Amino acid sequence: MKARLRRLLGTPLHPLLERDIYLSHRDLPEVLDRYERGDPFFLYTGRGPSGEVHLAHLLPFELSSYLQQKLGVEFWVQVTDDEKFLFQGALSLEETRRLGRENLLDLLALGFDPKKTHILFDTASIRSLYPLALKVAKRVTYSTAKAVFGFTPQNNIGSIFFTAIQSVPAFLPSARAGRPVPCLIPCGIDQDPHFRITRDVAEPLGYPKPALIHNRLLPGLSGEEKMSSSAERKDGVIFLNDPPEEVDRKLSRAFTGGRASVEEQRRLGANPEVCSVWALWRSRFAPDPKEFAEITRTCRSGELLCGECKRRLIPRVQQFLGEHARRRADVERWVDSAIVDGPPGGTA
Amino acid sequence: MKARLRRLLGTPLHPLLERDIYLSHRDLPEVLDRYERGDPFFLYTGRGPSGEVHLAHLLPFELSSYLQQKLGVEFWVQVTDDEKFLFQGALSLEETRRLGRENLLDLLALGFDPKKTHILFDTASIRSLYPLALKVAKRVTYSTAKAVFGFTPQNNIGSIFFTAIQSVPAFLPSARAGRPVPCLIPCGIDQDPHFRITRDVAEPLGYPKPALIHNRLLPGLSGEEKMSSSAERKDGVIFLNDPPEEVDRKLSRAFTGGRASVEEQRRLGANPEVCSVWALWRSRFAPDPKEFAEITRTCRSGELLCGECKRRLIPRVQQFLGEHARRRADVERWVDSAIVDGPPGGTA
Repeated sequence: MKARLRRLLGTPLHPLLERDIYLSHRDLPEVLDRYERGDPFFLYTGRGPSGEVHLAHLLPFELSSYLQQKLGVEFWVQVTDDEKFLFQGALSLEETRRLGRENLLDLLALGFDPKKTHILFDTASIRSLYPLALKVAKRVTYSTAKAVFGFTPQNNIGSIFFTAIQSVPAFLPSARAGRPVPCLIPCGIDQDPHFRITRDVAEPLGYPKPALIHNRLLPGLSGEEKMSSSAERKDGVIFLNDPPEEVDRKLSRAFTGGRASVEEQRRLGANPEVCSVWALWRSRFAPDPKEFAEITRTCRSGELLCGECKRRLIPRVQQFLGEHARRRADVERWVDSAIVDGPPGGTA
Repeated sequence: MKARLRRLLGTPLHPLLERDIYLSHRDLPEVLDRYERGDPFFLYTGRGPSGEVHLAHLLPFELSSYLQQKLGVEFWVQVTDDEKFLFQGALSLEETRRLGRENLLDLLALGFDPKKTHILFDTASIRSLYPLALKVAKRVTYSTAKAVFGFTPQNNIGSIFFTAIQSVPAFLPSARAGRPVPCLIPCGIDQDPHFRITRDVAEPLGYPKPALIHNRLLPGLSGEEKMSSSAERKDGVIFLNDPPEEVDRKLSRAFTGGRASVEEQRRLGANPEVCSVWALWRSRFAPDPKEFAEITRTCRSGELLCGECKRRLIPRVQQFLGEHARRRADVERWVDSAIVDGPPGGTA
């Protein structure tokens, strides 16, 4: 699969692909076959606005940005302000809407073509989403939704319906074009079940089954399997708006694959596979393959100690966040005009 | 209650009120108290477009038209094209949308003030409906919806969510005005359970509980308890677009409260309470109280035989339908501009 991607996208591949952060897929060859026959696909991914954006949230957007640049494809992003309101008891709809727009700026600042970017902001774009969501919903029983998502009778009726809304972006470009337009969804491996229903209803509704490409989870800095701000401790997460001193503090304390003592590490080497700092180098902070290989080799050999490794990473992360903040201001100029049916507003 | 309504609306009351076709209510006195203190309520009723409009469908619209004329209040009507698509397996969304607009013309032809009439056409008005529907949905568990509507695990997830959409019109005018605006819902007595959930969530959401006023069901012409086109036989129903000869045929065969023979009827009289023809006189075809009293008296006494009674009714119904068709053309001029968020259209 990587050999095929290299032929299509050039070499080296984006680190997310080359370094197996995107680790599995469903039906990707079919989408590429069609692309090579002149039938472009579109990319769809989403963001549930329940808080600030952190580094782990970037992965599907960074791959999408890369694929858009290389292949010129359309990109659809869904902001599920409805979902986060329905599933998170404490959040108001006003708050998920506000976060949704803030989050969009952070995510789109990775670099997208404004002319080929379409935003579905659920409560604002619902006039476009709802008719197709009804067609999905009519084909999904409570029994099926319960089997996939583990609902109980205490779940609210909005959360049960929501999977229909989340399926729509995979079909909307086909419905608009009046012909099948293949869809590729980059997403975290933990999001796969959400799209099982989408894939199941696609063909009965006359749309192509969306293909998926899954990234592995970015580990948290405190040693968690997943970098997630829903954890109690926010120190495991680097937010895009963290000031430089916060980046320094968090990374200086980050969990690594180092040994109990310097002497032991020099002798036995460290273990990058379990290291949250190495995971960051791997994902985006050592884009040069030679540099990344060198970091990995010297980590394993014991030449590079964890303190030194962190001191090299910290300014890279600080610099990225600073540049990102500047690119975010550019996005502000076009984001509202890319929202299907217009920006959110009015009575919520 | 009727004495109070006479003081407010004038005497005699509309036949629907005077003749107890509207037979029960919830919280009507509270709404009238507020109205008399200078705080106008609004009317809300709806139509599920699953077929053509027939005479029974007119009852809530006829009461609404009367109350709007007498009191100058705003009227909100909801066309649930989504509901009928979700609940009726055989209907496409394109078909429920088409029927929805046709039905609106029939119902609004009863006479409404275009400046005080607001149409929520669910799939077209969803941008206004959805944020409030989410707030309702978050407060309604599957367990509650199941208890009220009798859902099973085989029900689709759209039908389970739908009650949230149906609750919104009761709250939307308050949300738009930024202050509580009381709501009065005229509806068939069989629709009461639908609004139990609406009333339960109203106060937690900060909106006034909607008041209800319920009409008894208009019997079918074939002796059914309810005039309903979902029955196998369409002969029990007079549709607004029935041609004159159909009206003649259906009414000539209509079920009555007559006796087995003319002799017996002359001697014992007939029973208007069970008669589908008398129910039509009562509802709208004998607006003059004296005439209605005379029909009822002579029916009971045996002076008026069923054949003669039908021959008097048939031209009245034919005339009404003819005038109605002409008024329908007037509504066509303003109906689309009264739809909140604009008329339906685009990709369904």
